[in-house]
Amino acid sequence: MINLDLSNISVGDFAEIEIKMTFDMIKSFALISQDFNPIHLNEEYAANSRFKKRIIPGMLVGSLFSGLFGTNLPGEGCVYKSQNLRFKRAIYIGDVVKAKVEVTHVCIKKKVITFTTRCFVHKKIMIDGESEVFVP
Amino acid sequence: MINLDLSNISVGDFAEIEIKMTFDMIKSFALISQDFNPIHLNEEYAANSRFKKRIIPGMLVGSLFSGLFGTNLPGEGCVYKSQNLRFKRAIYIGDVVKAKVEVTHVCIKKKVITFTTRCFVHKKIMIDGESEVFVP
Repeated sequence: MINLDLSNISVGDFAEIEIKMTFDMIKSFALISQDFNPIHLNEEYAANSRFKKRIIPGMLVGSLFSGLFGTNLPGEGCVYKSQNLRFKRAIYIGDVVKAKVEVTHVCIKKKVITFTTRCFVHKKIMIDGESEVFVP
Repeated sequence: MINLDLSNISVGDFAEIEIKMTFDMIKSFALISQDFNPIHLNEEYAANSRFKKRIIPGMLVGSLFSGLFGTNLPGEGCVYKSQNLRFKRAIYIGDVVKAKVEVTHVCIKKKVITFTTRCFVHKKIMIDGESEVFVP
């Protein structure tokens, strides 16, 4: 049986990843999410919007937190308990996003780790949030 | 300039979609999110976990809300302001998920619609949450 160890995880521990956002990611995400909103997919439509350019779906960028949890901190075998996301600014194709998760609380008894979850572009917070991850 | 009309959207309005979860969706989502957690991808690993089977990433299922917003209610051109997600139960390959968004508040002045966002399998709530969507 899988049994991860929480005792070596402390408040302030963090993991991060930097990824360049691409149109291919938008297309793949559209097929999964059924999100065919032209603000993400159609260059001409987006040019006529207040954003002027196609924007990356917020949930696509937010999914990077899932990647950090599942492969890095706390690592494989963990599952999501909750994720809150506040989308502060639009993210565009070609932007390099840094996703960062940082431990704010560890509950050994319930095997739940609480994190702040943030995405940055050029050090500006684009997505802010919190999550709880269950470690079996 | 795109200018959506909020005046025909009322509290209680809803949109929903039913989708069967597949391993191909997990693989596509892994490439976008970098979530290579074996609890999602590796049959043998998952068999040895408390879940016994590979589970669908929560953020993958939650992305169906993005699809409903961007294509149905309020429809194209809208963008996310916030999304809260509470993952209540594991969802497995082959499960048919019903995602449903329902209007709980409309702020004409701020052009923001508030929703409850829920996913069901066999009428059981698997994911519970709320979101705010901005309508330019």
